[in-house]
Amino acid sequence: MTANRLSLNQKTTNSWSLREAVDGCVQSGLNSIGLWREPVHEVGLSAAARMVADAGLRVSSLCRGGFLTTDDPEAARKAIEDNVRAIEEAAELAAACLVLVVGGLPDGSRDLPGARDRVARALDILVPRAADHGVRLALEPMNPIYCADRGVLSTLGQALDLAEQYPAKHVGVVVDTFHVWWDPEVLPQIARAGARIFGFQVCDWITPLPADTLLARGMMGDGHIDFRTLRAAVDAAGYDGDIEVEIFNADIWAADPGGVLETMKNRYAEHVEAR
Amino acid sequence: MTANRLSLNQKTTNSWSLREAVDGCVQSGLNSIGLWREPVHEVGLSAAARMVADAGLRVSSLCRGGFLTTDDPEAARKAIEDNVRAIEEAAELAAACLVLVVGGLPDGSRDLPGARDRVARALDILVPRAADHGVRLALEPMNPIYCADRGVLSTLGQALDLAEQYPAKHVGVVVDTFHVWWDPEVLPQIARAGARIFGFQVCDWITPLPADTLLARGMMGDGHIDFRTLRAAVDAAGYDGDIEVEIFNADIWAADPGGVLETMKNRYAEHVEAR
Repeated sequence: MTANRLSLNQKTTNSWSLREAVDGCVQSGLNSIGLWREPVHEVGLSAAARMVADAGLRVSSLCRGGFLTTDDPEAARKAIEDNVRAIEEAAELAAACLVLVVGGLPDGSRDLPGARDRVARALDILVPRAADHGVRLALEPMNPIYCADRGVLSTLGQALDLAEQYPAKHVGVVVDTFHVWWDPEVLPQIARAGARIFGFQVCDWITPLPADTLLARGMMGDGHIDFRTLRAAVDAAGYDGDIEVEIFNADIWAADPGGVLETMKNRYAEHVEAR
Repeated sequence: MTANRLSLNQKTTNSWSLREAVDGCVQSGLNSIGLWREPVHEVGLSAAARMVADAGLRVSSLCRGGFLTTDDPEAARKAIEDNVRAIEEAAELAAACLVLVVGGLPDGSRDLPGARDRVARALDILVPRAADHGVRLALEPMNPIYCADRGVLSTLGQALDLAEQYPAKHVGVVVDTFHVWWDPEVLPQIARAGARIFGFQVCDWITPLPADTLLARGMMGDGHIDFRTLRAAVDAAGYDGDIEVEIFNADIWAADPGGVLETMKNRYAEHVEAR
Protein backbone atom coordinates (compact mmCIF):
# COMPACT_ATOMS: atom_id res chain seq x y z
CA MET A 1 0.00 0.00 0.00
CA THR A 2 1.34 3.43 -0.87
CA ALA A 3 1.69 6.24 1.58
CA ASN A 4 -1.48 7.93 0.40
CA ARG A 5 -4.37 5.91 1.77
CA LEU A 6 -7.05 8.56 1.39
CA SER A 7 -9.83 7.46 -0.96
CA LEU A 8 -12.76 9.43 -2.33
CA ASN A 9 -15.99 7.53 -2.03
CA GLN A 10 -18.01 8.70 -5.02
CA LYS A 11 -21.00 9.46 -2.85
CA THR A 12 -19.14 12.38 -1.26
CA THR A 13 -19.12 14.17 -4.63
CA ASN A 14 -22.55 12.93 -5.56
CA SER A 15 -23.13 15.31 -8.49
CA TRP A 16 -19.97 14.20 -10.28
CA SER A 17 -20.08 11.53 -12.96
CA LEU A 18 -17.59 8.70 -12.71
CA ARG A 19 -15.37 10.47 -15.26
CA GLU A 20 -15.39 13.67 -13.21
CA ALA A 21 -14.73 11.81 -9.96
CA VAL A 22 -11.82 9.88 -11.47
CA ASP A 23 -10.33 13.08 -12.88
CA GLY A 24 -10.87 14.82 -9.55
CA CYS A 25 -8.98 12.10 -7.72
CA VAL A 26 -6.08 12.24 -10.15
CA GLN A 27 -5.86 16.02 -10.02
CA SER A 28 -5.90 15.92 -6.23
CA GLY A 29 -3.19 13.31 -6.02
CA LEU A 30 -5.40 10.59 -4.65
CA ASN A 31 -4.58 6.98 -5.51
CA SER A 32 -7.91 5.38 -4.73
CA ILE A 33 -11.64 5.72 -5.26
CA GLY A 34 -14.69 4.05 -3.74
CA LEU A 35 -17.24 3.30 -6.46
CA TRP A 36 -21.03 3.01 -6.51
CA ARG A 37 -22.81 0.67 -8.83
CA GLU A 38 -25.23 3.18 -10.31
CA PRO A 39 -22.63 5.59 -11.77
CA VAL A 40 -20.61 2.57 -12.91
CA HIS A 41 -23.67 1.27 -14.78
CA GLU A 42 -24.11 4.67 -16.41
CA VAL A 43 -20.81 4.33 -18.27
CA GLY A 44 -20.88 0.55 -18.50
CA LEU A 45 -18.93 -1.91 -16.39
CA SER A 46 -16.00 -2.56 -18.74
CA ALA A 47 -15.61 1.11 -19.59
CA ALA A 48 -15.67 1.99 -15.90
CA ALA A 49 -13.05 -0.62 -15.09
CA ARG A 50 -10.81 0.71 -17.87
CA MET A 51 -11.35 4.31 -16.85
CA VAL A 52 -10.27 3.65 -13.28
CA ALA A 53 -7.37 1.43 -14.24
CA ASP A 54 -6.11 3.87 -16.87
CA ALA A 55 -6.11 6.59 -14.24
CA GLY A 56 -3.97 4.39 -12.01
CA LEU A 57 -6.52 4.35 -9.21
CA ARG A 58 -7.21 1.52 -6.80
CA VAL A 59 -10.88 0.72 -6.13
CA SER A 60 -11.15 0.76 -2.35
CA SER A 61 -14.71 -0.61 -2.37
CA LEU A 62 -17.78 -1.13 -4.48
CA CYS A 63 -21.01 0.09 -2.90
CA ARG A 64 -23.16 -1.81 -2.59
CA GLY A 65 -24.78 -5.17 -2.32
CA GLY A 66 -27.09 -6.34 0.40
CA PHE A 67 -30.78 -5.70 1.14
CA LEU A 68 -31.22 -9.33 1.99
CA THR A 69 -33.92 -9.16 4.66
CA THR A 70 -37.10 -9.52 2.63
CA ASP A 71 -39.53 -12.21 3.73
CA ASP A 72 -41.02 -12.56 0.24
CA PRO A 73 -39.51 -15.54 -1.62
CA GLU A 74 -39.64 -13.92 -5.07
CA ALA A 75 -38.08 -10.70 -3.78
CA ALA A 76 -35.44 -12.77 -2.00
CA ARG A 77 -34.58 -14.58 -5.22
CA LYS A 78 -34.20 -11.26 -7.02
CA ALA A 79 -32.04 -9.91 -4.22
CA ILE A 80 -29.69 -12.87 -4.54
CA GLU A 81 -29.50 -12.36 -8.31
CA ASP A 82 -28.69 -8.71 -7.87
CA ASN A 83 -26.00 -9.50 -5.32
CA VAL A 84 -24.44 -12.05 -7.65
CA ARG A 85 -24.28 -9.32 -10.30
CA ALA A 86 -22.68 -7.01 -7.74
CA ILE A 87 -20.07 -9.68 -6.99
CA GLU A 88 -19.29 -9.99 -10.70
CA GLU A 89 -18.97 -6.22 -10.96
CA ALA A 90 -16.68 -6.05 -7.93
CA ALA A 91 -14.48 -8.69 -9.55
CA GLU A 92 -14.24 -6.85 -12.86
CA LEU A 93 -13.51 -3.57 -11.08
CA ALA A 94 -10.89 -5.28 -8.88
CA ALA A 95 -12.54 -3.68 -5.89
CA ALA A 96 -10.93 -4.36 -2.50
CA CYS A 97 -14.36 -5.39 -1.25
CA LEU A 98 -18.06 -5.36 -1.99
CA VAL A 99 -19.87 -3.47 0.77
CA LEU A 100 -23.07 -5.14 1.96
CA VAL A 101 -25.78 -2.99 3.54
CA VAL A 102 -27.91 -5.84 4.74
CA GLY A 103 -31.36 -4.21 4.77
CA GLY A 104 -33.94 -3.27 7.37
CA LEU A 105 -37.21 -4.79 8.52
CA PRO A 106 -39.65 -5.76 5.78
CA ASP A 107 -42.73 -3.53 5.55
CA GLY A 108 -44.97 -4.09 8.53
CA SER A 109 -42.66 -6.60 10.18
CA ARG A 110 -41.45 -6.34 13.77
CA ASP A 111 -39.45 -9.57 13.62
CA LEU A 112 -35.90 -8.33 14.02
CA PRO A 113 -34.33 -11.72 14.81
CA GLY A 114 -36.05 -13.13 11.71
CA ALA A 115 -34.64 -10.39 9.49
CA ARG A 116 -31.18 -10.94 10.92
CA ASP A 117 -31.44 -14.66 10.32
CA ARG A 118 -32.40 -14.16 6.67
CA VAL A 119 -29.18 -12.20 6.14
CA ALA A 120 -27.21 -15.21 7.30
CA ARG A 121 -29.16 -17.57 5.03
CA ALA A 122 -28.51 -15.29 2.05
CA LEU A 123 -24.80 -15.23 2.87
CA ASP A 124 -24.80 -19.02 2.78
CA ILE A 125 -25.68 -18.66 -0.90
CA LEU A 126 -23.55 -15.64 -1.73
CA VAL A 127 -20.26 -16.52 -0.06
CA PRO A 128 -19.43 -19.39 -2.45
CA ARG A 129 -20.19 -17.09 -5.38
CA ALA A 130 -17.92 -14.42 -3.95
CA ALA A 131 -15.20 -17.02 -3.45
CA ASP A 132 -15.57 -18.14 -7.07
CA HIS A 133 -14.86 -14.59 -8.16
CA GLY A 134 -12.19 -13.79 -5.59
CA VAL A 135 -14.38 -11.03 -4.15
CA ARG A 136 -14.39 -10.08 -0.48
CA LEU A 137 -17.80 -9.34 1.09
CA ALA A 138 -17.70 -6.55 3.68
CA LEU A 139 -20.64 -6.56 6.07
CA GLU A 140 -21.47 -3.04 7.19
CA PRO A 141 -22.75 -2.73 10.74
CA MET A 142 -24.95 0.36 10.75
CA ASN A 143 -25.77 2.93 13.37
CA PRO A 144 -28.95 1.81 15.17
CA ILE A 145 -30.66 4.87 13.75
CA TYR A 146 -30.96 2.79 10.56
CA CYS A 147 -31.89 -0.55 12.12
CA ALA A 148 -35.55 -0.40 11.08
CA ASP A 149 -35.16 0.72 7.51
CA ARG A 150 -31.66 0.06 6.24
CA GLY A 151 -29.41 -2.26 8.19
CA VAL A 152 -30.33 -4.77 10.89
CA LEU A 153 -26.67 -5.41 11.71
CA SER A 154 -26.21 -2.84 14.46
CA THR A 155 -22.81 -3.40 16.02
CA LEU A 156 -19.37 -4.42 14.89
CA GLY A 157 -19.52 -7.35 17.31
CA GLN A 158 -22.74 -8.58 15.76
CA ALA A 159 -21.31 -8.26 12.24
CA LEU A 160 -18.24 -10.22 13.29
CA ASP A 161 -20.37 -12.93 14.90
CA LEU A 162 -21.89 -13.38 11.45
CA ALA A 163 -18.69 -12.95 9.42
CA GLU A 164 -16.87 -15.52 11.51
CA GLN A 165 -19.21 -18.20 10.27
CA TYR A 166 -17.40 -17.93 6.92
CA PRO A 167 -13.75 -17.97 5.79
CA ALA A 168 -11.81 -14.85 6.78
CA LYS A 169 -10.59 -14.31 3.25
CA HIS A 170 -14.14 -14.03 1.89
CA VAL A 171 -16.28 -12.37 4.57
CA GLY A 172 -15.31 -9.42 6.74
CA VAL A 173 -16.56 -6.01 7.77
CA VAL A 174 -16.31 -2.39 6.80
CA VAL A 175 -15.73 -0.10 9.76
CA ASP A 176 -17.53 3.21 9.23
CA THR A 177 -16.92 5.76 11.96
CA PHE A 178 -20.44 7.20 11.62
CA HIS A 179 -21.92 3.81 12.41
CA VAL A 180 -19.66 2.60 15.22
CA TRP A 181 -18.24 5.62 17.06
CA TRP A 182 -20.72 5.46 19.96
CA ASP A 183 -20.22 1.74 20.67
CA PRO A 184 -18.63 1.12 24.08
CA GLU A 185 -17.20 -2.10 22.61
CA VAL A 186 -15.79 -0.54 19.45
CA LEU A 187 -12.09 -0.74 20.31
CA PRO A 188 -12.01 -4.39 21.42
CA GLN A 189 -14.21 -5.34 18.49
CA ILE A 190 -11.88 -3.61 16.03
CA ALA A 191 -9.01 -5.58 17.57
CA ARG A 192 -11.05 -8.76 17.26
CA ALA A 193 -11.84 -7.99 13.61
CA GLY A 194 -8.16 -8.03 12.64
CA ALA A 195 -7.75 -9.30 9.09
CA ARG A 196 -11.50 -9.23 8.59
CA ILE A 197 -11.41 -5.44 8.27
CA PHE A 198 -11.92 -5.09 4.54
CA GLY A 199 -12.64 -1.37 4.54
CA PHE A 200 -12.48 1.73 6.71
CA GLN A 201 -14.78 4.68 6.02
CA VAL A 202 -14.78 8.02 7.78
CA CYS A 203 -17.29 10.82 8.21
CA ASP A 204 -18.53 12.72 11.25
CA TRP A 205 -21.58 12.60 13.50
CA ILE A 206 -23.00 16.12 13.58
CA THR A 207 -25.61 17.70 15.83
CA PRO A 208 -28.30 18.72 15.56
CA LEU A 209 -28.86 15.78 13.26
CA PRO A 210 -30.13 16.95 9.84
CA ALA A 211 -33.86 16.39 9.29
CA ASP A 212 -33.27 13.67 6.71
CA THR A 213 -31.36 11.11 8.70
CA LEU A 214 -30.14 9.41 5.53
CA LEU A 215 -28.22 12.61 4.78
CA ALA A 216 -27.01 13.18 8.31
CA ARG A 217 -23.28 12.65 7.85
CA GLY A 218 -20.76 15.41 8.33
CA MET A 219 -17.29 16.32 7.13
CA MET A 220 -14.56 15.20 9.52
CA GLY A 221 -14.05 17.88 12.14
CA ASP A 222 -17.61 19.22 11.98
CA GLY A 223 -18.91 16.83 14.61
CA HIS A 224 -18.20 14.68 17.62
CA ILE A 225 -16.10 11.74 16.46
CA ASP A 226 -12.56 11.14 17.65
CA PHE A 227 -11.20 9.78 14.36
CA ARG A 228 -7.60 9.40 15.35
CA THR A 229 -8.38 6.91 18.13
CA LEU A 230 -10.49 4.79 15.79
CA ARG A 231 -7.93 5.01 13.04
CA ALA A 232 -5.15 3.94 15.41
CA ALA A 233 -7.23 0.95 16.47
CA VAL A 234 -7.86 -0.06 12.86
CA ASP A 235 -4.16 0.32 12.09
CA ALA A 236 -3.22 -1.73 15.15
CA ALA A 237 -5.62 -4.45 14.02
CA GLY A 238 -3.49 -4.77 10.91
CA TYR A 239 -5.58 -2.91 8.35
CA ASP A 240 -3.34 -1.19 5.83
CA GLY A 241 -5.91 -0.55 3.09
CA ASP A 242 -7.44 2.66 1.90
CA ILE A 243 -9.41 5.04 4.08
CA GLU A 244 -12.56 6.22 2.33
CA VAL A 245 -14.40 9.43 2.99
CA GLU A 246 -18.08 8.71 2.42
CA ILE A 247 -20.44 11.58 3.20
CA PHE A 248 -24.18 11.73 2.58
CA ASN A 249 -25.13 15.34 3.22
CA ALA A 250 -27.36 17.70 1.24
CA ASP A 251 -25.21 20.77 1.94
CA ILE A 252 -22.01 19.01 0.88
CA TRP A 253 -23.72 17.63 -2.21
CA ALA A 254 -24.84 21.15 -3.14
CA ALA A 255 -21.31 22.54 -2.84
CA ASP A 256 -18.69 22.57 -5.60
CA PRO A 257 -17.30 19.01 -5.74
CA GLY A 258 -13.76 20.19 -6.37
CA GLY A 259 -13.92 22.32 -3.25
CA VAL A 260 -15.38 19.41 -1.28
CA LEU A 261 -12.46 17.25 -2.37
CA GLU A 262 -9.94 19.86 -1.21
CA THR A 263 -11.73 20.26 2.13
CA MET A 264 -11.80 16.50 2.49
CA LYS A 265 -8.04 16.28 1.96
CA ASN A 266 -7.37 19.00 4.51
CA ARG A 267 -9.74 17.60 7.10
CA TYR A 268 -8.31 14.12 6.60
CA ALA A 269 -4.82 15.44 7.29
CA GLU A 270 -6.03 17.35 10.34
CA HIS A 271 -8.32 14.78 11.93
CA VAL A 272 -7.61 11.31 10.60
CA GLU A 273 -4.04 10.92 9.36
CA ALA A 274 -1.59 9.22 11.67
CA ARG A 275 0.69 11.70 13.41
CA MET B 1 -48.33 -4.67 42.53
CA THR B 2 -51.91 -4.48 41.32
CA ALA B 3 -53.10 -5.96 38.07
CA ASN B 4 -53.00 -2.62 36.29
CA ARG B 5 -49.35 -1.81 35.65
CA LEU B 6 -49.89 0.80 32.96
CA SER B 7 -48.52 4.20 33.95
CA LEU B 8 -48.86 7.56 32.20
CA ASN B 9 -45.56 9.35 31.96
CA GLN B 10 -46.50 13.01 32.13
CA LYS B 11 -44.46 13.79 29.04
CA THR B 12 -46.94 11.86 26.89
CA THR B 13 -49.63 14.42 27.70
CA ASN B 14 -47.21 17.32 27.67
CA SER B 15 -49.80 20.09 27.57
CA TRP B 16 -51.55 18.90 30.74
CA SER B 17 -50.71 20.37 34.12
CA LEU B 18 -49.95 17.94 36.93
CA ARG B 19 -53.54 18.39 38.19
CA GLU B 20 -54.94 17.53 34.77
CA ALA B 21 -52.65 14.54 34.36
CA VAL B 22 -53.53 13.17 37.80
CA ASP B 23 -57.25 13.60 37.10
CA GLY B 24 -56.82 12.00 33.67
CA CYS B 25 -55.15 8.96 35.21
CA VAL B 26 -57.90 8.55 37.80
CA GLN B 27 -60.69 8.93 35.24
CA SER B 28 -59.00 6.36 33.00
CA GLY B 29 -58.57 3.85 35.80
CA LEU B 30 -54.79 4.08 35.89
CA ASN B 31 -53.04 3.49 39.21
CA SER B 32 -49.71 5.06 38.44
CA ILE B 33 -48.06 8.13 36.96
CA GLY B 34 -44.51 9.02 35.91
CA LEU B 35 -43.69 12.57 36.98
CA TRP B 36 -41.37 15.24 35.62
CA ARG B 37 -39.66 17.70 37.88
CA GLU B 38 -40.71 20.88 36.04
CA PRO B 39 -44.49 20.40 36.38
CA VAL B 40 -43.95 19.22 39.95
CA HIS B 41 -42.08 22.46 40.69
CA GLU B 42 -44.95 24.45 39.19
CA VAL B 43 -47.34 23.31 41.91
CA GLY B 44 -44.71 22.89 44.61
CA LEU B 45 -43.16 19.66 45.82
CA SER B 46 -45.33 19.06 48.89
CA ALA B 47 -48.52 19.96 47.08
CA ALA B 48 -47.58 17.64 44.24
CA ALA B 49 -46.84 14.78 46.61
CA ARG B 50 -50.23 15.31 48.32
CA MET B 51 -52.06 15.58 45.01
CA VAL B 52 -50.72 12.28 43.76
CA ALA B 53 -51.16 10.49 47.09
CA ASP B 54 -54.72 11.79 47.54
CA ALA B 55 -55.55 10.43 44.08
CA GLY B 56 -54.26 7.02 45.15
CA LEU B 57 -51.60 6.94 42.42
CA ARG B 58 -48.20 5.35 42.61
CA VAL B 59 -45.27 7.35 41.22
CA SER B 60 -43.57 5.00 38.80
CA SER B 61 -40.60 7.32 38.24
CA LEU B 62 -39.38 10.87 38.60
CA CYS B 63 -37.78 12.29 35.47
CA ARG B 64 -35.09 13.30 35.64
CA GLY B 65 -31.66 13.73 37.12
CA GLY B 66 -28.37 13.32 35.33
CA PHE B 67 -26.47 15.55 32.88
CA LEU B 68 -23.27 14.69 34.66
CA THR B 69 -20.75 14.81 31.82
CA THR B 70 -19.56 18.42 31.95
CA ASP B 71 -15.81 18.96 32.09
CA ASP B 72 -16.19 22.34 33.79
CA PRO B 73 -15.67 22.03 37.58
CA GLU B 74 -18.20 24.72 38.50
CA ALA B 75 -20.84 23.27 36.18
CA ALA B 76 -20.11 19.83 37.62
CA ARG B 77 -20.64 21.13 41.15
CA LYS B 78 -23.98 22.63 40.15
CA ALA B 79 -24.99 19.39 38.44
CA ILE B 80 -24.32 17.46 41.63
CA GLU B 81 -26.37 19.97 43.64
CA ASP B 82 -29.25 19.68 41.22
CA ASN B 83 -29.14 15.91 41.36
CA VAL B 84 -29.17 15.97 45.15
CA ARG B 85 -32.33 18.10 44.95
CA ALA B 86 -33.80 15.60 42.50
CA ILE B 87 -33.03 12.80 44.96
CA GLU B 88 -34.80 14.71 47.73
CA GLU B 89 -37.78 15.28 45.46
CA ALA B 90 -37.93 11.60 44.47
CA ALA B 91 -37.96 10.72 48.17
CA GLU B 92 -40.80 13.10 49.01
CA LEU B 93 -42.81 11.90 46.01
CA ALA B 94 -42.14 8.25 46.94
CA ALA B 95 -41.08 7.66 43.35
CA ALA B 96 -40.11 4.10 42.45
CA CYS B 97 -36.92 5.52 40.97
CA LEU B 98 -35.16 8.67 39.85
CA VAL B 99 -34.34 8.39 36.14
CA LEU B 100 -30.85 9.58 35.23
CA VAL B 101 -30.21 10.80 31.68
CA VAL B 102 -26.48 11.02 32.02
CA GLY B 103 -25.69 13.74 29.44
CA GLY B 104 -23.80 13.96 26.17
CA LEU B 105 -20.40 15.24 25.15
CA PRO B 106 -19.48 18.70 26.43
CA ASP B 107 -19.45 21.42 23.77
CA GLY B 108 -16.54 20.87 21.41
CA SER B 109 -15.35 17.70 23.10
CA ARG B 110 -14.72 14.44 21.28
CA ASP B 111 -13.60 12.58 24.40
CA LEU B 112 -16.33 9.99 24.80
CA PRO B 113 -14.46 7.77 27.28
CA GLY B 114 -13.78 10.88 29.38
CA ALA B 115 -17.46 11.83 29.45
CA ARG B 116 -18.42 8.30 30.40
CA ASP B 117 -15.87 8.30 33.19
CA ARG B 118 -17.21 11.54 34.64
CA VAL B 119 -20.64 9.94 34.96
CA ALA B 120 -19.10 7.24 37.13
CA ARG B 121 -17.28 9.81 39.28
CA ALA B 122 -20.52 11.72 39.80
CA LEU B 123 -22.31 8.54 40.84
CA ASP B 124 -19.63 7.97 43.45
CA ILE B 125 -20.92 11.17 45.06
CA LEU B 126 -24.64 10.72 44.39
CA VAL B 127 -25.16 7.08 45.36
CA PRO B 128 -24.57 7.64 49.09
CA ARG B 129 -27.01 10.56 48.98
CA ALA B 130 -29.60 8.41 47.25
CA ALA B 131 -29.06 5.69 49.84
CA ASP B 132 -29.57 8.22 52.64
CA HIS B 133 -32.97 9.06 51.18
CA GLY B 134 -33.97 5.53 50.20
CA VAL B 135 -34.09 6.58 46.55
CA ARG B 136 -33.22 4.25 43.67
CA LEU B 137 -31.19 5.72 40.83
CA ALA B 138 -32.16 4.34 37.40
CA LEU B 139 -29.49 4.82 34.73
CA GLU B 140 -31.08 5.22 31.32
CA PRO B 141 -29.09 3.77 28.44
CA MET B 142 -30.05 5.83 25.40
CA ASN B 143 -30.33 5.05 21.74
CA PRO B 144 -26.98 5.90 20.09
CA ILE B 145 -28.81 8.60 18.16
CA TYR B 146 -28.49 10.63 21.36
CA CYS B 147 -24.93 9.69 22.30
CA ALA B 148 -23.39 13.03 21.31
CA ASP B 149 -25.93 15.38 22.84
CA ARG B 150 -27.95 13.62 25.51
CA GLY B 151 -26.74 10.34 26.88
CA VAL B 152 -23.30 8.73 26.58
CA LEU B 153 -24.56 5.47 28.04
CA SER B 154 -25.51 3.69 24.84
CA THR B 155 -26.38 0.10 25.70
CA LEU B 156 -28.05 -1.75 28.51
CA GLY B 157 -24.88 -3.77 28.99
CA GLN B 158 -22.83 -0.62 29.42
CA ALA B 159 -25.33 0.82 31.90
CA LEU B 160 -25.21 -2.42 33.89
CA ASP B 161 -21.41 -2.45 33.88
CA LEU B 162 -21.69 0.91 35.63
CA ALA B 163 -24.65 0.09 37.88
CA GLU B 164 -22.96 -3.06 39.15
CA GLN B 165 -20.24 -0.97 40.73
CA TYR B 166 -22.85 0.05 43.32
CA PRO B 167 -25.34 -1.78 45.55
CA ALA B 168 -28.26 -3.33 43.64
CA LYS B 169 -30.81 -1.70 45.90
CA HIS B 170 -29.56 1.79 45.06
CA VAL B 171 -28.43 1.78 41.42
CA GLY B 172 -30.18 0.10 38.51
CA VAL B 173 -31.48 0.85 35.05
CA VAL B 174 -34.61 1.92 33.28
CA VAL B 175 -35.33 -0.13 30.19
CA ASP B 176 -36.90 2.06 27.49
CA THR B 177 -37.92 0.18 24.36
CA PHE B 178 -37.10 3.14 22.10
CA HIS B 179 -33.53 3.10 23.34
CA VAL B 180 -32.77 -0.62 23.42
CA TRP B 181 -34.95 -2.39 20.85
CA TRP B 182 -32.23 -2.64 18.17
CA ASP B 183 -29.55 -4.08 20.49
CA PRO B 184 -28.58 -7.64 19.52
CA GLU B 185 -27.71 -8.18 23.21
CA VAL B 186 -30.94 -6.77 24.63
CA LEU B 187 -32.52 -10.03 25.80
CA PRO B 188 -29.49 -11.46 27.64
CA GLN B 189 -28.79 -8.03 29.12
CA ILE B 190 -32.38 -7.74 30.41
CA ALA B 191 -31.95 -11.16 32.01
CA ARG B 192 -28.66 -10.01 33.52
CA ALA B 193 -30.28 -6.84 34.85
CA GLY B 194 -32.73 -8.79 37.00
CA ALA B 195 -33.54 -6.88 40.17
CA ARG B 196 -31.68 -3.85 38.86
CA ILE B 197 -34.57 -3.09 36.51
CA PHE B 198 -36.09 -0.12 38.29
CA GLY B 199 -38.34 1.00 35.47
CA PHE B 200 -39.76 -0.08 32.13
CA GLN B 201 -40.84 2.52 29.57
CA VAL B 202 -42.49 1.87 26.23
CA CYS B 203 -42.89 3.81 23.02
CA ASP B 204 -42.29 2.94 19.38
CA TRP B 205 -39.53 3.56 16.83
CA ILE B 206 -41.21 5.11 13.80
CA THR B 207 -39.91 5.69 10.27
CA PRO B 208 -39.27 7.97 8.62
CA LEU B 209 -37.82 9.44 11.77
CA PRO B 210 -39.38 12.86 12.50
CA ALA B 211 -37.12 15.80 11.66
CA ASP B 212 -36.59 16.72 15.31
CA THR B 213 -35.00 13.58 16.67
CA LEU B 214 -35.79 14.59 20.24
CA LEU B 215 -39.48 14.26 19.31
CA ALA B 216 -39.08 11.08 17.29
CA ARG B 217 -41.00 8.64 19.48
CA GLY B 218 -44.18 6.97 18.37
CA MET B 219 -47.28 5.45 19.93
CA MET B 220 -47.02 1.70 20.39
CA GLY B 221 -48.11 -0.01 17.21
CA ASP B 222 -47.14 2.84 14.90
CA GLY B 223 -43.59 1.58 14.39
CA HIS B 224 -41.20 -1.33 14.35
CA ILE B 225 -40.78 -2.51 17.93
CA ASP B 226 -41.85 -5.95 19.11
CA PHE B 227 -43.02 -4.89 22.57
CA ARG B 228 -44.34 -8.19 23.76
CA THR B 229 -40.98 -9.94 23.46
CA LEU B 230 -39.24 -7.18 25.41
CA ARG B 231 -41.99 -7.09 28.00
CA ALA B 232 -41.81 -10.86 28.45
CA ALA B 233 -38.06 -10.59 28.98
CA VAL B 234 -38.48 -7.85 31.57
CA ASP B 235 -41.17 -9.91 33.32
CA ALA B 236 -38.96 -12.99 33.27
CA ALA B 237 -36.13 -10.96 34.80
CA GLY B 238 -38.40 -10.41 37.79
CA TYR B 239 -39.62 -6.88 37.18
CA ASP B 240 -43.17 -6.46 38.45
CA GLY B 241 -43.33 -2.68 38.60
CA ASP B 242 -45.25 -0.23 36.49
CA ILE B 243 -44.92 0.08 32.74
CA GLU B 244 -44.73 3.69 31.67
CA VAL B 245 -45.71 5.09 28.33
CA GLU B 246 -43.37 7.99 27.62
CA ILE B 247 -43.76 9.62 24.20
CA PHE B 248 -42.03 12.73 22.91
CA ASN B 249 -43.81 13.56 19.65
CA ALA B 250 -45.07 16.89 18.32
CA ASP B 251 -48.19 15.38 16.72
CA ILE B 252 -49.16 13.53 19.89
CA TRP B 253 -48.50 16.63 21.97
CA ALA B 254 -50.77 18.64 19.66
CA ALA B 255 -53.64 16.14 20.01
CA ASP B 256 -56.29 16.16 22.76
CA PRO B 257 -54.57 14.68 25.83
CA GLY B 258 -57.68 12.77 26.88
CA GLY B 259 -57.80 11.10 23.51
CA VAL B 260 -54.09 10.33 23.69
CA LEU B 261 -54.62 8.63 27.03
CA GLU B 262 -57.41 6.46 25.62
CA THR B 263 -55.31 5.54 22.58
CA MET B 264 -52.43 4.73 24.89
CA LYS B 265 -54.61 2.36 26.94
CA ASN B 266 -55.87 0.60 23.83
CA ARG B 267 -52.46 0.29 22.25
CA TYR B 268 -50.98 -0.95 25.50
CA ALA B 269 -53.60 -3.69 25.64
CA GLU B 270 -53.02 -4.60 22.01
CA HIS B 271 -49.21 -4.47 21.84
CA VAL B 272 -47.70 -4.64 25.32
CA GLU B 273 -49.96 -6.39 27.80
CA ALA B 274 -49.17 -10.01 28.62
CA ARG B 275 -51.51 -12.40 26.85
